[in-house]
Amino acid sequence: MKTSIDIDTKEVGEWIDWLAGFGYTKNGGVTRLLYDENWRLAQNSLFQKMNESGLKTHFDGVGNLFGRLDGTEKGEKTILTGSHIDTVIDGGKYDGAYGIIASLIAVNYLKQRYGSPQKSIEVVSLCEEEGSRFPLAFWGSGSITGKFNREDCSGLYDTKKVSFSHAMKSMGLQTDKEQVKRDDIDCFIEMHIEQGAVLEKEKKSIGIVSHIVGQRRFTIKVKGESNHAGTTPMPYRKDSMHIAAELITYALKQVTEIDSQLVATVGRILAIPNVPNVIAKEVTFTLDVRHHQEEVLDYYCEKVFACFEQKCKAAGMNVEWEQWLDVKAVAMDDKLTELAYTIVQEMDIPYRKMISGAGHDAQVFGTYCSTALVFVPSVGGISHSPKEYTKLEDLTRGIIVLIELLYRLAY
Amino acid sequence: MKTSIDIDTKEVGEWIDWLAGFGYTKNGGVTRLLYDENWRLAQNSLFQKMNESGLKTHFDGVGNLFGRLDGTEKGEKTILTGSHIDTVIDGGKYDGAYGIIASLIAVNYLKQRYGSPQKSIEVVSLCEEEGSRFPLAFWGSGSITGKFNREDCSGLYDTKKVSFSHAMKSMGLQTDKEQVKRDDIDCFIEMHIEQGAVLEKEKKSIGIVSHIVGQRRFTIKVKGESNHAGTTPMPYRKDSMHIAAELITYALKQVTEIDSQLVATVGRILAIPNVPNVIAKEVTFTLDVRHHQEEVLDYYCEKVFACFEQKCKAAGMNVEWEQWLDVKAVAMDDKLTELAYTIVQEMDIPYRKMISGAGHDAQVFGTYCSTALVFVPSVGGISHSPKEYTKLEDLTRGIIVLIELLYRLAY
Repeated sequence: MKTSIDIDTKEVGEWIDWLAGFGYTKNGGVTRLLYDENWRLAQNSLFQKMNESGLKTHFDGVGNLFGRLDGTEKGEKTILTGSHIDTVIDGGKYDGAYGIIASLIAVNYLKQRYGSPQKSIEVVSLCEEEGSRFPLAFWGSGSITGKFNREDCSGLYDTKKVSFSHAMKSMGLQTDKEQVKRDDIDCFIEMHIEQGAVLEKEKKSIGIVSHIVGQRRFTIKVKGESNHAGTTPMPYRKDSMHIAAELITYALKQVTEIDSQLVATVGRILAIPNVPNVIAKEVTFTLDVRHHQEEVLDYYCEKVFACFEQKCKAAGMNVEWEQWLDVKAVAMDDKLTELAYTIVQEMDIPYRKMISGAGHDAQVFGTYCSTALVFVPSVGGISHSPKEYTKLEDLTRGIIVLIELLYRLAY
Repeated sequence: MKTSIDIDTKEVGEWIDWLAGFGYTKNGGVTRLLYDENWRLAQNSLFQKMNESGLKTHFDGVGNLFGRLDGTEKGEKTILTGSHIDTVIDGGKYDGAYGIIASLIAVNYLKQRYGSPQKSIEVVSLCEEEGSRFPLAFWGSGSITGKFNREDCSGLYDTKKVSFSHAMKSMGLQTDKEQVKRDDIDCFIEMHIEQGAVLEKEKKSIGIVSHIVGQRRFTIKVKGESNHAGTTPMPYRKDSMHIAAELITYALKQVTEIDSQLVATVGRILAIPNVPNVIAKEVTFTLDVRHHQEEVLDYYCEKVFACFEQKCKAAGMNVEWEQWLDVKAVAMDDKLTELAYTIVQEMDIPYRKMISGAGHDAQVFGTYCSTALVFVPSVGGISHSPKEYTKLEDLTRGIIVLIELLYRLAY
């Protein structure tokens, strides 16, 4: 790697472990849910660290934490960089946390080496992204970009019947005190672990994201007839398991024929009555399909559901489907990604351009301001698990890229 | 129908409803489990009815109830006819019960019209067939034919933790008092509802069974790798749901290609973790396959499992299977079934020869003595349900066939 930037790898590891301490679980994972005690401790401790670094620090009305390094050019918009502080239940040490730590280390480095930038830079520890506590995700980025307002959280409860607004108030946050939406963001830059195994398999250290995929999720219900497994000859059956297996086989086989970047998953299946010697009356399964181009998703869905309908009709059976998720694909900013390519090429870091198959805060910012999303490898592609792991040298390499990117944008 | 036998259809319905009264459920079904209070009341009331009919009545050591009409030829073996008194939970009024009532009405008719037969005839109300209370089925026929002995029930408990031997004792049955196995059975004749829709669909009133199928049941486990539904490109996946769907499709498609009388059912499926946006790590499903020829079952199973192994190996995945049921096919007695054909042809009753896809007491007797099994139609093929129903005229027609059969065998 060709660079003069010198970051202490050991220190990166210490930062990661320090933040993982807030919500550390007996399985070696982290549970830090929006507005819980570990969340409070983590945000307040980060607040202190930012203060100690000489950043101008504040919380907004929903608990997003900002640490600002003022630019010399007055009135300029700010460069925002960071990720989310919350985790899934028994998640890993890196998802979200790495983006915050990378941003803080990068800004500290720039401040110490170069002093004040021309443009202001803000490190952000977003309050929430995972949707692990309340049935609402991207609360942090959604509040800053104006996607959400206070009404969106009203009437929501966690599994312990605590209301969203009560949880907020218990953190000292006033739900109706101030507008959280900001109009002074120039661009958003997020560092994140890949949560997949592409970089590792291809021996790349950096992934520069061009698009975040659109996601559609469906529940499909095949309705047949329950009957005795012994006394019903095959031609008399309306076996919903048989048809469901054919539909799943078809839907997953189509994927690779349509587009190499399309992915589809049937993750859940339920049969009724689900008894070995009774023909299933009803089989329900989910279909999760993702691609960065809406027209590819349209084509796939039309083709698959036309086939579902035709196959079930031919079998004298009924099929129903319901779409319960529709997240549009988002493109990252061309100029920012071009700049990132230039930097990693100059530094001679093995990289690849890639599509993000998972959702990130960058996807919310992407429809609101210029946004860049940069991945570091996940060992074994494992994420949302105590086994989530990224090598220290990869974490460090990502931070060096972020430093260079911020330097070229702000100084 | 050409016959001089005259049975009161209304009376047949009254008998069915009378027996259904012991264990009648709020759903309109019947729950009468081995050695429960309804079972005791039903067997004791049948005992009384048999006595009133002038039959020589006794219980054996496991609770099978016999009502004997002595033959004039001394030392001859006896003709046994009947079915089982127990039901599944919330089962129907006809399964088992019809066979007992048909036998009792038939023997009463013959006795009143013709007096004593040459050969003795015994009506039997078998104590158990369904396996609904304890994890053991065919306890009645199995005890008479010597398939089971007292050790087979030791250590068994129902869901309320009552032991088999305690349940027996509470009925006044002495578990070690006497040998139950009989060596004086000439033949067994069972009348039963079809529990399928073949007779109804083909507009036949009587089904004469040539074979009871062999049954094999398997649990198949496909082992892949759990991964993120978004970040794992299709070629990197080891999606156990995808493979399982292919295996199920293949296994069920093969059935009709191999033999028109072969049936196979995948009734149960379970995926782990069974979450819409996670690739399934493991999918387990059952396979129930039935045919009356062992060689057809062998051929099917060999072909299907060879394909399972090959497909999983090609996908870099693992497949395991376990067989947990192996019931051999049983042929009914040629002479008895020929006699039944002759009778229904002479009576001009629409009938068909058929294979029984379900297990029956006749299958246990079939390996021990000459056995016949005769079906009457089930409306909609529904059984093991409060909705189980057979038309009174079909029930009556079956009884008339049984009377003629017993007359020709015993008088």
